[in-house]
Amino acid sequence: MSDLDLVVRGGTVATASGAMRTDVGIRGGRIAALGESLKGGAREIDAAGLLLLPGGVDTHCHIEQPEADGTVHEDSFVTASAAALAGGTTTAICFSPQFKGHPIAATLPGYRARARKAMIDYSFHQIITDPTDDVLGREIPALIADGIRSLKVFMTYDPLHVDDRQLLRILAVARRHGALVTVHCENYEAIRWRTEALLAAGLTAPKYHAWSRPPVVEREATHRAIALAELVDQPIQIFHVSCDEAAEEIARARARGQKVWGETCPQYFVLGAADMDRPGFEGAKFMCSPAPRDAAESEKLWRHVARGTLDVISSDHCGYSYEGDKGKRLHGADASFPDIPNGIPGVQTRLAIAFSEGVGKGRIDLAQFVALTATNPARLFGLYPRKGAIAVGSDADIVLWDTARRVRISNGLLRHAIDYTPYEGLEVTGWPVLTLSRGEVVARDGVVQAEPGRGQFLARGPYDLIRPTGRLANGFDAAPALP
Amino acid sequence: MSDLDLVVRGGTVATASGAMRTDVGIRGGRIAALGESLKGGAREIDAAGLLLLPGGVDTHCHIEQPEADGTVHEDSFVTASAAALAGGTTTAICFSPQFKGHPIAATLPGYRARARKAMIDYSFHQIITDPTDDVLGREIPALIADGIRSLKVFMTYDPLHVDDRQLLRILAVARRHGALVTVHCENYEAIRWRTEALLAAGLTAPKYHAWSRPPVVEREATHRAIALAELVDQPIQIFHVSCDEAAEEIARARARGQKVWGETCPQYFVLGAADMDRPGFEGAKFMCSPAPRDAAESEKLWRHVARGTLDVISSDHCGYSYEGDKGKRLHGADASFPDIPNGIPGVQTRLAIAFSEGVGKGRIDLAQFVALTATNPARLFGLYPRKGAIAVGSDADIVLWDTARRVRISNGLLRHAIDYTPYEGLEVTGWPVLTLSRGEVVARDGVVQAEPGRGQFLARGPYDLIRPTGRLANGFDAAPALP
Amino acid sequence: MSDLDLVVRGGTVATASGAMRTDVGIRGGRIAALGESLKGGAREIDAAGLLLLPGGVDTHCHIEQPEADGTVHEDSFVTASAAALAGGTTTAICFSPQFKGHPIAATLPGYRARARKAMIDYSFHQIITDPTDDVLGREIPALIADGIRSLKVFMTYDPLHVDDRQLLRILAVARRHGALVTVHCENYEAIRWRTEALLAAGLTAPKYHAWSRPPVVEREATHRAIALAELVDQPIQIFHVSCDEAAEEIARARARGQKVWGETCPQYFVLGAADMDRPGFEGAKFMCSPAPRDAAESEKLWRHVARGTLDVISSDHCGYSYEGDKGKRLHGADASFPDIPNGIPGVQTRLAIAFSEGVGKGRIDLAQFVALTATNPARLFGLYPRKGAIAVGSDADIVLWDTARRVRISNGLLRHAIDYTPYEGLEVTGWPVLTLSRGEVVARDGVVQAEPGRGQFLARGPYDLIRPTGRLANGFDAAPALP
Amino acid sequence: MSDLDLVVRGGTVATASGAMRTDVGIRGGRIAALGESLKGGAREIDAAGLLLLPGGVDTHCHIEQPEADGTVHEDSFVTASAAALAGGTTTAICFSPQFKGHPIAATLPGYRARARKAMIDYSFHQIITDPTDDVLGREIPALIADGIRSLKVFMTYDPLHVDDRQLLRILAVARRHGALVTVHCENYEAIRWRTEALLAAGLTAPKYHAWSRPPVVEREATHRAIALAELVDQPIQIFHVSCDEAAEEIARARARGQKVWGETCPQYFVLGAADMDRPGFEGAKFMCSPAPRDAAESEKLWRHVARGTLDVISSDHCGYSYEGDKGKRLHGADASFPDIPNGIPGVQTRLAIAFSEGVGKGRIDLAQFVALTATNPARLFGLYPRKGAIAVGSDADIVLWDTARRVRISNGLLRHAIDYTPYEGLEVTGWPVLTLSRGEVVARDGVVQAEPGRGQFLARGPYDLIRPTGRLANGFDAAPALP
Repeated sequence: MSDLDLVVRGGTVATASGAMRTDVGIRGGRIAALGESLKGGAREIDAAGLLLLPGGVDTHCHIEQPEADGTVHEDSFVTASAAALAGGTTTAICFSPQFKGHPIAATLPGYRARARKAMIDYSFHQIITDPTDDVLGREIPALIADGIRSLKVFMTYDPLHVDDRQLLRILAVARRHGALVTVHCENYEAIRWRTEALLAAGLTAPKYHAWSRPPVVEREATHRAIALAELVDQPIQIFHVSCDEAAEEIARARARGQKVWGETCPQYFVLGAADMDRPGFEGAKFMCSPAPRDAAESEKLWRHVARGTLDVISSDHCGYSYEGDKGKRLHGADASFPDIPNGIPGVQTRLAIAFSEGVGKGRIDLAQFVALTATNPARLFGLYPRKGAIAVGSDADIVLWDTARRVRISNGLLRHAIDYTPYEGLEVTGWPVLTLSRGEVVARDGVVQAEPGRGQFLARGPYDLIRPTGRLANGFDAAPALP
Repeated sequence: MSDLDLVVRGGTVATASGAMRTDVGIRGGRIAALGESLKGGAREIDAAGLLLLPGGVDTHCHIEQPEADGTVHEDSFVTASAAALAGGTTTAICFSPQFKGHPIAATLPGYRARARKAMIDYSFHQIITDPTDDVLGREIPALIADGIRSLKVFMTYDPLHVDDRQLLRILAVARRHGALVTVHCENYEAIRWRTEALLAAGLTAPKYHAWSRPPVVEREATHRAIALAELVDQPIQIFHVSCDEAAEEIARARARGQKVWGETCPQYFVLGAADMDRPGFEGAKFMCSPAPRDAAESEKLWRHVARGTLDVISSDHCGYSYEGDKGKRLHGADASFPDIPNGIPGVQTRLAIAFSEGVGKGRIDLAQFVALTATNPARLFGLYPRKGAIAVGSDADIVLWDTARRVRISNGLLRHAIDYTPYEGLEVTGWPVLTLSRGEVVARDGVVQAEPGRGQFLARGPYDLIRPTGRLANGFDAAPALP
Repeated sequence: MSDLDLVVRGGTVATASGAMRTDVGIRGGRIAALGESLKGGAREIDAAGLLLLPGGVDTHCHIEQPEADGTVHEDSFVTASAAALAGGTTTAICFSPQFKGHPIAATLPGYRARARKAMIDYSFHQIITDPTDDVLGREIPALIADGIRSLKVFMTYDPLHVDDRQLLRILAVARRHGALVTVHCENYEAIRWRTEALLAAGLTAPKYHAWSRPPVVEREATHRAIALAELVDQPIQIFHVSCDEAAEEIARARARGQKVWGETCPQYFVLGAADMDRPGFEGAKFMCSPAPRDAAESEKLWRHVARGTLDVISSDHCGYSYEGDKGKRLHGADASFPDIPNGIPGVQTRLAIAFSEGVGKGRIDLAQFVALTATNPARLFGLYPRKGAIAVGSDADIVLWDTARRVRISNGLLRHAIDYTPYEGLEVTGWPVLTLSRGEVVARDGVVQAEPGRGQFLARGPYDLIRPTGRLANGFDAAPALP
Repeated sequence: MSDLDLVVRGGTVATASGAMRTDVGIRGGRIAALGESLKGGAREIDAAGLLLLPGGVDTHCHIEQPEADGTVHEDSFVTASAAALAGGTTTAICFSPQFKGHPIAATLPGYRARARKAMIDYSFHQIITDPTDDVLGREIPALIADGIRSLKVFMTYDPLHVDDRQLLRILAVARRHGALVTVHCENYEAIRWRTEALLAAGLTAPKYHAWSRPPVVEREATHRAIALAELVDQPIQIFHVSCDEAAEEIARARARGQKVWGETCPQYFVLGAADMDRPGFEGAKFMCSPAPRDAAESEKLWRHVARGTLDVISSDHCGYSYEGDKGKRLHGADASFPDIPNGIPGVQTRLAIAFSEGVGKGRIDLAQFVALTATNPARLFGLYPRKGAIAVGSDADIVLWDTARRVRISNGLLRHAIDYTPYEGLEVTGWPVLTLSRGEVVARDGVVQAEPGRGQFLARGPYDLIRPTGRLANGFDAAPALP
C-alpha cells in the first residue's frame, strides 16, 4: 500500500449494516484502507469518541433552479453547498427543469453551467413536463446515456404536471433505456378543485394549504403512479411520502413484488399542519407539499421507515426567504395560499433531525440511519459504491459526528441563503463536527472551507435496481409502441 | 280487506331475509295481502312447488340506446322487455346518453319517447359525458328533481370518458342534489396506450381486447373513483367489477366506512378471456368491458359476493348481433378488436345463471340471491319498496321459479333481438315459469304476453342510501364552490 | 282466509330487508296474514305511528344458571323473562351448564325443569366443559337430536375453559352431527398470568379487571378458535367481540371463505374501561368479559357491525346485584377483581341501546337493526322463520316500537331482579310500547302481563348455516378418528 | 500498522450493504485491514475473480444433540463442522437440550464438553422444555450471564412442547435478563389430533407427515407466539417459516411495530410435499417440520424474504441417515410417519442453494444474500460484529466464492455423516472455493483442513436487538410477578 494522504484515526465507522472501530486511510480523495493503527498519513485527524458516517447523500434538493416564471430559487449552488457540507451532506441530486413548450436542451446546458459552482458533488434528476416525441425519443435517451439516469415527474402543480398518458410514455422510455422514475404524487385536479372552493369561501390563509391537499389526494396519486408503473413494469420511487395511507400503498405494492421505493423527509416527522396555522403570515414558513400532517401520522411514518417501506430520508430542500419580496412574499404578505411559494429549506438539518428523532429516540438503529440517509439513496440512484459508504474504493466523503452534542437549531447556525428555518428552536442530539469531501476538509464546526466549483458532476451508469422485474400483464411489453 | 283481483296460491315467497310459505293476494297491480289460505281472488294461479321471487331488478341495461355515431343498440325497448320478462326481470334501469358538445336535453326527451314502448317498468341512469356549467348547474338538478336520481360516468371509452375534474364536479352536484353516481372504472389512457401498442404489434384479434385492459387497469380506476368520492363524500356504485383486485378496493373503502357499493355480472362468473380466443371471429361474441378473466378470478368474485363487497348482480345487457353488418361486424369481420362493438346480451339469462351458479352451487343462499338480483338494486336506486320485494304495498312483480328445472341455454330460448348468446350450451338448474308485472301475467314458459307500452317510467324520490356520511376532510365541503 | 284472532293495524312492519305499511293478522299465535285493511280480527291493536319489529331474539342470556360453586344466577326465568318482554325480546337462548367431572345429564334435566317457568320462548346452548368420550360420543349427539343444536365453549375461566384438544374434539362432533359452536375467546393462561402479576403488585381494584385482559388476549384466542375451526371445517360464532383486533380476525376469516360469525353487545358500544375506575367499589357494576374498551374502539366496532363482520347484537345478560351478599359482593366489598362476579345485566335494554346508538345515530339502518337483533340470531341458531321475522307463518312475536320516545334509562324501569343497571342515566331515543308473544300481549308500557310457564322450549332442527363448507386441508376430514 | 499474517488479494468483498474491490489483511485471526494493494502479508491468497463472503452464520443446527430417548444425532461436532466449513459456514448455533424432569444442568455441561471437538465457532440456544421455578429463576439467568443469550421453545412435539403459561414465563424471564426467544411454531394438539386420525384411517406413509400439519397449524402457532410476545413485550424469532400464511402473521406484527423476526430455510425453497410421496420409504428423506409445501408457496416465501419479513436463512440441519437402523429407519422401514425421525441435513448446502436460487435467479441481490446468511443472524444473536461481516476488527471468517461454478449437488460432495442429501441432483450455480476461519484455511475445494477442537465457544453479551420496545398494555409489565 503506497502512502496515505490522510488518516482519520480512532473513530467508529458506521455502515448500513453495522459499525466498526477502525482508522480510515485516504489517498487521492478515495478511501484506500480501513484498518487498525494504519501507518503513514501525511495528515491525521483525530476522531476519537466520534462516529464516522458516510457523507450524506441527499437525493432531493432544489438548488438555484429556474422556474417557468423566470424566477430562480434563492439558494445558489454555492450557498446550498455550504449548507449541505456544514450539515454533513456531501452529495446531492438536484433538478434540471424542462419548461412546457421547450425541449430539455433549452434548460439543461444552462443549469449544468450553474452547477459548476457547486462545492458538493452532484447529479441531476431531469424533470419532464412536456414529453413530446422528440423529448421521449431523442433527448431522454441521450441524457440517460450521459449519466442522468433519473426522471422526475409531477402529478400535480401547474404547469408542471403530466397526465396519465404522458406518465405512461415516460415510464416506458425509462424502462427501455434504464432510468429510474421519481414521482411527486398528489392528484392535480383534486387539489385544484378544493383550492378553488377554499378561495371561493374566502379561506386563503396559509393553513388552508393543508386543507387543499388532504391525505386522500396523496394516496390516490400514489396508487395511480404505482398502478401505471406496474402496467409498464418500471421501477419507481415515490417522493416525499407524508402519510400512512400513501405509505401503505407502497407496502402493498412491495408485497406484490413490485419495485417501488418510498422517500420521506424530516418535515414529516417534526412539523405539522398546525404550524401553518401560526399567527399572521408565519404559517407560510411551513408550507410545502405534500403538507405536513400531525404527530400521530408522523409516528406511523416512522413505523414505515423502520420496516423498510420508506427507505430514503431526503430533505426536499426548497428554500424561500420569509422576508423580502423574492421568497414567500413574492406575491405579497397577504397572498392567498396558492400564491405563496411552496417549499422549505432543510438540506443542512436533514441528518441531525433524522439522527436525533430516529436513532436518538430508538425508532431506528444506527445502521438504518446510515442506510436511509446515505447508502440507500446512493444505491437507488446508481451512485454506490462511489458514494454512500465508507468502504475501500469509495470517495472519501466522511462526516465526523458527535452523537452527544445537543444543539438547539437556529437559523444562525445554517449556511443556506434563506432567512429562516422551519425548525427554529428544535432541539437535537447529535451534530456534525467535521466534513470530508473526497478527502478534503470542507467543513469544520459549521465553518465551510471549500471553494466554489470544487464539486463534481456524477455521471451514473446502468445498475441493477432500475431493471424491470420482467413481470408484465399477459407477458406483453407495451413499450415498443412508443416512438 | 276488499276483494283481491288475483291470488297466487301455494308457493314459497323468497325475500332478502328468508322465505315463507304464503299465498299472495294482489289488487290493483299491487300486493295487497300475504297470508295463509287467502280468500277471494277473481283469478288464481297455482304456485305449488314453486318459489315466488320478487321480479328481477336489472339496474344495468343498454336498450335501444343511441350512440354518438348515429347507431342505435339493436335491442329495442320491445325486444329487450320481452327478454327481460321471459327471464323474470320486471324492472330495468337503462341509460339516457349525453353526447359531447350537446346538452342532456338534446337526447333525453327522445330517449324517453322511445322508452314508452317498454313492457317492463323502467328508469334511467343519465350518462354524463360533457359536464358543462349548464349541465351541472341546471340540467342535472332538474332531472334529479324529475326522479332520475343516478348519474353514470365512464372513466374510459372515447368519446365518453370524463377526466378527474369532471368527475369531481359531477360527484359534487350529485351530493348537493341527492343522486347516486355509478362509475365504469377502467383507466382510459392505460387502455389506449396498450391498445396502440397491440395494434402496432399486429395483435388485432378479439382476444387482445382482454390484453388491452388487464386487472390493474380496472383496479387503478376503481381506487381513483373511490378516492375522489371520498374527497367529496359522495356515495357511488362501482359498475361491473370483474376481478379480485378491484373488489378488494371496494372492501377496503367499506372498512374505512365509505359508502361504496359494488356490482358484478354473470359474465364474470362463467365466461373467461379464453372465450375471446375462440377460432376466427367468434371471440367477438364474448367481448365486453371489463373483460372476463378466468375461473380462479370468478371464484374470488363469488367470495366477494358472499361477504357483501359486491351486492348487486346486474346483466350489463348490451347486445350486438354476430351476423349482419350492424352488430359485431359493424366494421367488418376482420376488424381489429378496438373496432368491434363491445358488449354482450344477458338480460334474460341473468337470474338463471346467478341462481344456478350461486344458490345451486352453494356459494350464496336464496336470501342472498334475492338481495343481489332484486332487493339490493331496488334499495340502492330508490325503487324500494315499490320494486325489489314481495311485500304488502309493493308492486305485484313476481316470478314463479322452478328450482328443479334444468335448462341448456340456447339462443332459441331467448327473446332479445340478438342472434346469439354468449352462454350457448351452458346448463343451468332453476328457470322462470311465469312472470307477473303489476299483477298481470306478462310471460309464461318463455312466451311473452304483454303489450308494448305497458311499462311505466319510475320516478325516484330522495332516499337514505345516497346521503353522504358527513365525513369530510377538515370538515370542508368543497361542493359549494361549484356553479 | 278464516277469521283472525287479532289484527295489529296501521303500523309499519320492519324486516331485515326493508319496511312496509301493513296490518298484521294473527291466528292461533302465528302470523296468518299481512295486508292492507285486513278484515276481521276478534281484537285489534292500533299501531298507527309505530314500528312493528319482530320480537327480539337474544341468543346470549345467562338466566337462573347454576354455577359449579353451588350459586345460581339471581335472575330467574321469571324475572329475566319479564325484563326481556318489557324490553321487546320474546326469545332467548340461555346456557345449560356442564360441570367438570359430571355428565351433561347431571345438570340438563334440572335446568330444563327450571326453564319451564319462563315467559319467553327459549332454547339452550349446551356449555361443554368436560368433553369426555361419553359426552362427545353419546350425550352431545343425543342433545343435538333433541334440538339443542349449539354448543358453547370457554377458552378462559376456571374451571370452565377447554384446551385446544378438547376444542378440536368438540368442533369435530359438532361437524358430524350438525351443531353450531359458539366460543368465548380469551386466552386463559395470558389472563391468569397477568392477573397473578397484578395481584402480586397489589393492583386489586375493579379497574384492573380490564388490565388483566387487554385486546391482544382476545385477538389471540379469536384467531386460535378460527384456526381450529378452519382445520375441522366447522362453522362457529365468536361471542361478544369487544375490539377491532378481534373483529378483524373474523373479517379475515370470512374473506378466506370460512363460516365464522361475530357477535357483539351493547356494553361494547356505550361502556368503557374508564367506568370500571369509578370511585370505591362502583367499578364492579361494569365488570364483564371481555372488558369494555373505549369510545374509539366502540366506533371501530360499529364499523364492523355496519359492514357485516359482526352480525348479531346480543345482551350477554348476566346479572349480579350490587348490594347484598349474593351478587357483586359475594366475596365482600373489597374483594380483589378476580373474585368479583363477572357479568352485567342487559336483556331489557339491548334493543333500545342498539336502536338509539345504531339507527338513531345513523350508524346502521332499520333493516340492519332488525337483522342484528332478531333475524340474524334466529337464522344462525335455527329458529328462523318461526322466530326473527314478521312473516306469514312465523310466530306472532311483535314489538310495537315508538321511534320518537326519549327515555333516560334507570333501574326503576327495568324488570330484572338486579338492583342496578350499568346504563343508569343513559338517554335513548326509541322504546318498546307493547310486546306480543305468539299473539298474546305480554307487556305494555313496561308492565308485564304474562304468566310464568307460558314460554315454550324451542327444539331446533338441522339447517343450512351450520353445514361445513367442505373445504378441508388435503381433503382430509380428521373427524372420523373421534369416538 | 504492524505486519499482516495473511493478505487475501484481488477479490470483491461482499457486505450486507454492498460490495467493494479490496484486499483483506489478516492479523491474529482478525481482519486488521481492508485496502487497495495492502503491503506485507506473510502469506497471500489470490482471490482474483472471486467473491469474498463473510463466513456463513448458521443459527439453526442440530449437532450431536442428545434426545430424551437416549439417542444422539448422527452428525458429530466433527462431521457437522466439516460439512459447515466445506460449505462456507464458519459459525453455528446449535441446541443444548433440557429434558423434562431434569434441570438444564443435567445436560448443558455434557453438551458443552462434546462441542469442544468442533472445528467451527459455535454458540448454543438453550432449549427449555421444563420451565420450573428453579429453571426460570436461577438456571436461565445464570446461562444468560454466561453468554447463552437465546432460548428455544417448541410449541409442538412430544415431549418437548411448552404450553402457553410456560411460554409466557419463559418470555418474561428472557425479557428481564435480555435474551432472545426463538420459537418452533406449530400447534401441538392440532397435529396430534390429525395424526391420530390419519393413523386410524391407515394413512401412515411419509407423505402423510405433510397432511398432519397443514399451513393453518403453523399460522395458528405463529400468531399465538406473536400475541404472547406482544403481551410480554419480548422480542422473538419465528423459526423455519414454511408458508405465506405464517409469514403474513410476522409481517402484520412488524407493521404494528413489534420486534418479531422470521427465519426460513432452503428446504422451503426447493423441496415440496410431493417429495414425501416418492415411492416406498424414500419420502422419509424429505421429512422435516414444518413440512415443505409446493412451488407456489416457495415463490411467496421468496417474496417475504425480498421484502424483509423473513430475514434469516438457516439450514435447520438435522440429519438422519436413510440406511442403517439409527436414522430414518430407527423404527423400521415401514414405520408410520410419526415414528420416522424428523429432520434433514443441510448445513453444507445452505449457502449454495440460497445463492443460486436467490441471487442467481434474481429474487434477491448479493447484499441481501449476505445479510440473510451471515450479517442478520449474527446481529440477531449478538455475534456481530465479531461474526457476520468482513470488517476491520471482525474475525477473519471469509469464504472465497466462485459465482460461476455450476455444481450438481450429490452426497459424495458433502462432508456430513449422513448417507444422503435431500438435494441430490439439484443444480446450483455458485460454490465455495476456500474457507477461512479466524484467518486459517479450513477448507479448500471441499477438502477440510482443520483439527477437531479448533472451534471456539462464543459467549454473547447483551445487545440492542433483544431490548423490548417498552410498549406494554396499560403500561403494565407483568414480568415482576414471576419468580
